[in-house]
Amino acid sequence: MAMMDRKKHRSLIERTEQKGTVGWDTLDAAGVSRRSFLGRVGKGSAALAVFGLGSEAAIQGLFGRSTLSSAVAAALEEFRVEGKVDGFIYLNDRPINGELPPHLLHDEVTPFPNMFIRNNGVPPAKDSIDPSRWTLTVSGEAADREVTYSIADLKSKFENVTLQIWIECGGNGRAAFEPSPRGNQWDLGAIGCPEWTGVRLRDVLEDAGYDRDKAVYIGYEAGDAHLSGRPDLDAISRGCPMRKALEDETIIAFAMNGEDIPEQHGYPLRLIVPGFPGSASGKWLQGILIRDREHDGEKMTGYSYRVPAYPVEPGADVPEEDMVILEEMPVKSLITFPETGVRTTVGAGLKVEGKAWDGYGDVEELHVSIDHGATWQKAKLNRPRNRFAWQTWEADIEFPTPGYYQVWAKATNRRGESQPMRVPGWNPRGYGNNRAHHIDVYVEA
Amino acid sequence: MAMMDRKKHRSLIERTEQKGTVGWDTLDAAGVSRRSFLGRVGKGSAALAVFGLGSEAAIQGLFGRSTLSSAVAAALEEFRVEGKVDGFIYLNDRPINGELPPHLLHDEVTPFPNMFIRNNGVPPAKDSIDPSRWTLTVSGEAADREVTYSIADLKSKFENVTLQIWIECGGNGRAAFEPSPRGNQWDLGAIGCPEWTGVRLRDVLEDAGYDRDKAVYIGYEAGDAHLSGRPDLDAISRGCPMRKALEDETIIAFAMNGEDIPEQHGYPLRLIVPGFPGSASGKWLQGILIRDREHDGEKMTGYSYRVPAYPVEPGADVPEEDMVILEEMPVKSLITFPETGVRTTVGAGLKVEGKAWDGYGDVEELHVSIDHGATWQKAKLNRPRNRFAWQTWEADIEFPTPGYYQVWAKATNRRGESQPMRVPGWNPRGYGNNRAHHIDVYVEA
Repeated sequence: MAMMDRKKHRSLIERTEQKGTVGWDTLDAAGVSRRSFLGRVGKGSAALAVFGLGSEAAIQGLFGRSTLSSAVAAALEEFRVEGKVDGFIYLNDRPINGELPPHLLHDEVTPFPNMFIRNNGVPPAKDSIDPSRWTLTVSGEAADREVTYSIADLKSKFENVTLQIWIECGGNGRAAFEPSPRGNQWDLGAIGCPEWTGVRLRDVLEDAGYDRDKAVYIGYEAGDAHLSGRPDLDAISRGCPMRKALEDETIIAFAMNGEDIPEQHGYPLRLIVPGFPGSASGKWLQGILIRDREHDGEKMTGYSYRVPAYPVEPGADVPEEDMVILEEMPVKSLITFPETGVRTTVGAGLKVEGKAWDGYGDVEELHVSIDHGATWQKAKLNRPRNRFAWQTWEADIEFPTPGYYQVWAKATNRRGESQPMRVPGWNPRGYGNNRAHHIDVYVEA
Repeated sequence: MAMMDRKKHRSLIERTEQKGTVGWDTLDAAGVSRRSFLGRVGKGSAALAVFGLGSEAAIQGLFGRSTLSSAVAAALEEFRVEGKVDGFIYLNDRPINGELPPHLLHDEVTPFPNMFIRNNGVPPAKDSIDPSRWTLTVSGEAADREVTYSIADLKSKFENVTLQIWIECGGNGRAAFEPSPRGNQWDLGAIGCPEWTGVRLRDVLEDAGYDRDKAVYIGYEAGDAHLSGRPDLDAISRGCPMRKALEDETIIAFAMNGEDIPEQHGYPLRLIVPGFPGSASGKWLQGILIRDREHDGEKMTGYSYRVPAYPVEPGADVPEEDMVILEEMPVKSLITFPETGVRTTVGAGLKVEGKAWDGYGDVEELHVSIDHGATWQKAKLNRPRNRFAWQTWEADIEFPTPGYYQVWAKATNRRGESQPMRVPGWNPRGYGNNRAHHIDVYVEA
């Protein structure tokens, strides 16, 4: 956040606090340490110790497909985000982070219960927000002037657009890097593709007015509170270059899937910067800064959402000055149907279906393999509903014999880049792992 | 070995023993247990304990590129096969098994020092063999009669052919399977491609005469002794279907690289069955059985050189009746130049070179990648000297930035099968791992 806006931002935070919206602070005095056991359940043994459970199988079922023991369920109750689907995988509770197993991402348009959550701070509670009083202020070094819009202003003044746009955490897939980088150990499911309704950022910027020669970047100001509770600190304030800010699909959304944006996902306003890591799509949006330089807000600098400017060896110490901002996410896909472990027969074969996406907005081809990548079969890949909607795909697979198969899926974008079958370039914070996905299939005679 | 030939074979073994050629029996009374420490050095810790060495680094250099400590060198001296290149990696000494790191396989025609050794029994010592008395007997249920040829007979009676033919152990790459299957933990180097001179097996079979309707398989009889020392047991007696036995390139060789076949590689006669696992190419060849059934000699049955008839889950127990004979080896390649860990500069780029081969005799394309398989560059792939000679390839690689790169190579055969980037189908004995190979490259500004 630029210094010039610090004061205004602080006042917003204070207003929020006065309204009692910094909900998590009141939940538990023990705070972070009490909740820190909540890493990925099923991957480690921390939860095992906490709950005194007897088997890994029980742990693996905790947040997943199996029955939740009532004692465990009670212990976890307070960490659940109301309305999320059974099987939602909580990685962290302060801030709240959670993802989905691939088979729970099968909806063509991701509904709220199946949308991952990646928060950096403490969100304002939805019921404490009066949307008629929420404002968006456009300012910054390259802004002609400071302009403040109410949500009603935005809705009435600018063309309303509805677009299906995927959001993926930059660290999605981090769990597969070795050595383990810091951060949430996302497996595959920090991705979702809801439908967003809002107005184009470009239209708002043009209405507010800015200096085309000076403007190089936009930064956002968000209404979440820093985990420390300090009002002078931002939880996160990221953005994107002007070229991206001005694209057709970069929007300020006020609805997700035709309804108010859910509390955890940015109510009442959210910036949507398609193709970029999800952190560029600021939630609880209160301000847009038109910057005359690369935005230097919280988590824009240092190692946050940055990758080395060159490939590095796993585990390398990379000088901070060699880190560059992560922009377009790499091409990727998931098999979302059926769930791994499915059984079929030689005669019946298997229809597999999934999703594919690319940071540049175009997936060209999708291939599947049942022999670990020795040969590939082209899948039917559907057009996206709009640019930056993920693309659905399907393939009818025949199995030559009974046995155990892995069905692998691999997307290729229009640049000829395909998903690697191995974890791609290691980087200090573990961004951009787009390794191909597979499911296990048991084929009977 | 068929019962009908057991007596003859026994007499050959006895003759060999009387001549004192079962050399290893006299070497050390302690035998197997004394030598059993000699697994792959550098991968496990057994040798560490034996030698009391202080660091893994020291161990890793034992058979490799680094300096050998004199104490260790002395301890290992007796296991060395005379003439093998420095860097030859011994996996086992009874029987002798050893492989090469990829950069020592760079010769277009593999010389003796760089040729891997995979023995099953105790070879007859070369200096105890009188080649003028060595014979090859053709017999079996489908043979018209039993015919015995001297080496001089073979050389004079049949067209002499010289072919460059690769031999690869069926278990090459086994070390990468998880869970670990039984057997030598070959990494990448149980492959070599010398030039063999001999006569076509087909010509010999036709001269000896056989029943075309009855003949389905050939089996070989070899002059090595069973590790137990029991003359009634064969160390190994494998073979191939008639379709393979009758191919142009299936030969009975009496020379390797223009000289007598070295002792460890089958002196004085060796069957060469191209494209099949190396064990089909019987060494110290004394007999060919023309079988009216699938040959049932030692290591033809059970789990030896067999794979499941269908894909199985890693670690699966596969019923013996579901195992089928491993025939054509899968498509594969190596980067043989430069050695992994090479340094270059952005401007200089790097010429990489290697070898490629396929069990069916044709590699169609070779691709290299510097981004973990996201994109691929086509390499120049040379024609083989003859069918079943490996093919050399080269690629000039430019690096866009300094940094750490992995250069991956992937071959594709004419069936459209390419090398997987991951370990392919697990099987109980760990055959046929043709995962793509890579080297590490450090690129400076």
